[in-house]
Amino acid sequence: MVKDKKTKPSKELPLGFVDRQEKELLIRDFVISNIKEVMIKYGFQYLETPSFEYTDSIGKFLPDKDRPDQGVFSFKDEKNWLSLRYDLTAPLSRYVAKNYLEIPKPFKRYQLGTVWRNEKPGPGRFREFLQFDADFVGTKNLMADAELCVMISEILKKCGLTDKDFTIKFSSRKAVEGVLDFYKINSKDKRSKVLRSLDKFDRLGWNEVKKLLGYGRKDTSGDFTAGADLTEEQINGLRGLLIYDAKEAYEYGTEGAEYNSDAYKEIQEFRDNLDFFGLKNYKFDPTVIRGLEYYTGIVFEINLNFDVQNSKGKTIQFGSVGGGGRYDNLVSNFGNFDCPATGISIGLDRLVFALMQKKDFKIKTVRPVVICVFDKSKNKEYIGILNKLRVSNISSEIYPGEGKLKKQMEYANKIGSPAVILYGDNEIKLGKATLKNLKTGNESSVKIEDLANEIKKLL
Amino acid sequence: MVKDKKTKPSKELPLGFVDRQEKELLIRDFVISNIKEVMIKYGFQYLETPSFEYTDSIGKFLPDKDRPDQGVFSFKDEKNWLSLRYDLTAPLSRYVAKNYLEIPKPFKRYQLGTVWRNEKPGPGRFREFLQFDADFVGTKNLMADAELCVMISEILKKCGLTDKDFTIKFSSRKAVEGVLDFYKINSKDKRSKVLRSLDKFDRLGWNEVKKLLGYGRKDTSGDFTAGADLTEEQINGLRGLLIYDAKEAYEYGTEGAEYNSDAYKEIQEFRDNLDFFGLKNYKFDPTVIRGLEYYTGIVFEINLNFDVQNSKGKTIQFGSVGGGGRYDNLVSNFGNFDCPATGISIGLDRLVFALMQKKDFKIKTVRPVVICVFDKSKNKEYIGILNKLRVSNISSEIYPGEGKLKKQMEYANKIGSPAVILYGDNEIKLGKATLKNLKTGNESSVKIEDLANEIKKLL
Repeated sequence: MVKDKKTKPSKELPLGFVDRQEKELLIRDFVISNIKEVMIKYGFQYLETPSFEYTDSIGKFLPDKDRPDQGVFSFKDEKNWLSLRYDLTAPLSRYVAKNYLEIPKPFKRYQLGTVWRNEKPGPGRFREFLQFDADFVGTKNLMADAELCVMISEILKKCGLTDKDFTIKFSSRKAVEGVLDFYKINSKDKRSKVLRSLDKFDRLGWNEVKKLLGYGRKDTSGDFTAGADLTEEQINGLRGLLIYDAKEAYEYGTEGAEYNSDAYKEIQEFRDNLDFFGLKNYKFDPTVIRGLEYYTGIVFEINLNFDVQNSKGKTIQFGSVGGGGRYDNLVSNFGNFDCPATGISIGLDRLVFALMQKKDFKIKTVRPVVICVFDKSKNKEYIGILNKLRVSNISSEIYPGEGKLKKQMEYANKIGSPAVILYGDNEIKLGKATLKNLKTGNESSVKIEDLANEIKKLL
Repeated sequence: MVKDKKTKPSKELPLGFVDRQEKELLIRDFVISNIKEVMIKYGFQYLETPSFEYTDSIGKFLPDKDRPDQGVFSFKDEKNWLSLRYDLTAPLSRYVAKNYLEIPKPFKRYQLGTVWRNEKPGPGRFREFLQFDADFVGTKNLMADAELCVMISEILKKCGLTDKDFTIKFSSRKAVEGVLDFYKINSKDKRSKVLRSLDKFDRLGWNEVKKLLGYGRKDTSGDFTAGADLTEEQINGLRGLLIYDAKEAYEYGTEGAEYNSDAYKEIQEFRDNLDFFGLKNYKFDPTVIRGLEYYTGIVFEINLNFDVQNSKGKTIQFGSVGGGGRYDNLVSNFGNFDCPATGISIGLDRLVFALMQKKDFKIKTVRPVVICVFDKSKNKEYIGILNKLRVSNISSEIYPGEGKLKKQMEYANKIGSPAVILYGDNEIKLGKATLKNLKTGNESSVKIEDLANEIKKLL
């Protein structure tokens, strides 16, 4: 766009970005404070990496090109490409590699931060998200994987959800890879496509996933996605995996022990630990894939079970607010050290959206009592009252505009103020102010020194 | 940089960006929670705008070019240029213009958010900052300007500073412009240069500023900045303004009333309001400029008076943590409405840095008690203890790695754990764990049900 200098600048936001209002922000603060409490209790350290990283540090340099992946926001510096982080895991890996000698091993850290994706925006598809991540770096101990699930469960309960409201589904990347091996799906490209397709089972159902495993699929917009081109036998074999219910799925481990005994043992140990912790609402589900790029072991996903209204007013099951799993090779990309790790990522905007839709979830917004202005020459008197109220920790303000009383009352109503204080010449003479309750309309004459107490009663 | 595919990715951060550790983040959280409390008490609404805006919305399209200003991080979308916000005021103006019909008038909002500057990085010069802003939009009432100063004073005191630790310096853009008029400094370019030069008085002193007002100045790196090319008489006249002490400066208003009666009245009213509020540590200082772009009236700056060590270990006066003032024309750029406004911006990273250097400022970091692992087959027992401690809200963890006891003790010491719990076969038989205080080295044998209480005593 070449800007026409004569037009006014745009008042709109670019697609995929939103302004957030107080109610949402207060619920988010509540969620964040719960997260921080639980993080301290679980012994995680607080860390913050910056928004920008070198593009190559976070693995977003396209192979065989001298440009970054288009999916990230990238900027050419004097010599180097910088990118806005697209998750918090890649920067953590860079941090660990940079500070490898100094950090405790294992290293437990949590981070809250915005991540960006330069994807095609659409309704409900954002290009900026607030994420919460917690990771264990430098350990193969499966206790860590279990703790992450227990921890997110504790956080969700602190936020007001019950066991019924969410389910933690888990799978094992090794188990899935074992099945791919068994069906001789060997090429890297094919395996990627299969994992991507299985990942969509929840959303699309078997009939559509079947197309993606075979020739390909046309979506509702008419776009065609090329399939993985598996044989009929391979597709049916994978279906066998997919339709296992939880009980059979556990058994499947023992049956197929010759190609996935590792996976089976891991699943058992992980599940035992969850049981020891007393976690109830978890479920083995081999369609849980959680993206492709770096997972190597146990993967899990946190699903909310209650209904929400989507942006079109349609009632839908909410689905995932995040997940995670084991990524044993990511950190070691930076150097010649072995650094197994496991972590969880929660999409805070999505979680807050879900909480806001839950009817029994309330948050209190505070609005100030408004002291009306009759005459600027009486500012000293108004400020006198204001100081008294604020010392008593009452949210309050002197009407900040310049209008007459009628406009001031309109303002007080508009902001949802609980009460106004009228302190005109007559009132000043009497040493009493008029306190008007804006909910009931009641007016009372109150001595200045009693105002704070009267307002506290009214709130 | 064309990436060499065979090299490991960089472990370093781009210049101007930093990782932030727990202590800094905890102090920042403390500051932010103080800010939020004061914001509620003062009746401000909480708002968040996104990181990206259309480049033209935030006024960063270069005149006569079809590219954005190089000082912001900009990104070409399918059709439009987007930029990362460089402050929170321009996005606020866009927000107000977009939501003009719905918002209360005046509109009081606060925001906490990261801003980015694509400037040449250097030691101590960052390209990413966390800012706190509070603004009144839609009012000329000078009570608003005074409230901002009172409010920041209350925030700083809540953070542990005293009246002696900071000074709020203020000036009037109208007064300064009046002086420029008086000395017939008329061209826009010259006025900009003069304001920019005066702004540096604090840092450079008169001798250097004099060069900038005249022919120009070579800085310590050898870079030459062209001056405003004023006459000797003009420079001396401005010096007359600069060397006024506070008392004379107030008087100067009455003496020069023919060219700045407006400014004088505003200064008086603003000062009266500060007095009514009981604010003590403020000072009139006509060298306070606060940037050029949009200020129109009262401007102010918050200076910390205590010494800090800079990155080279040199003791320096800290200086400004932020400031603000009146910008009556910015919002109306978007449309045909009149929308006077005033606001304050605080650099939170700088404020936190200063607080961290203040010796009497303490923050508590919590480290977990570590339950040592003798044998994975006893996970159930370890988790049993862990659950008991966490129910009692004690920060605790099972050793998350895989090493022997010696390595576990090293880990516990490394993270600064207060104590470890040893629960081996003998202990399990006795139903007692060994609690080892890592500060004193003392060991005691404690019944499982008494562990939480014993640890609370120890903490």
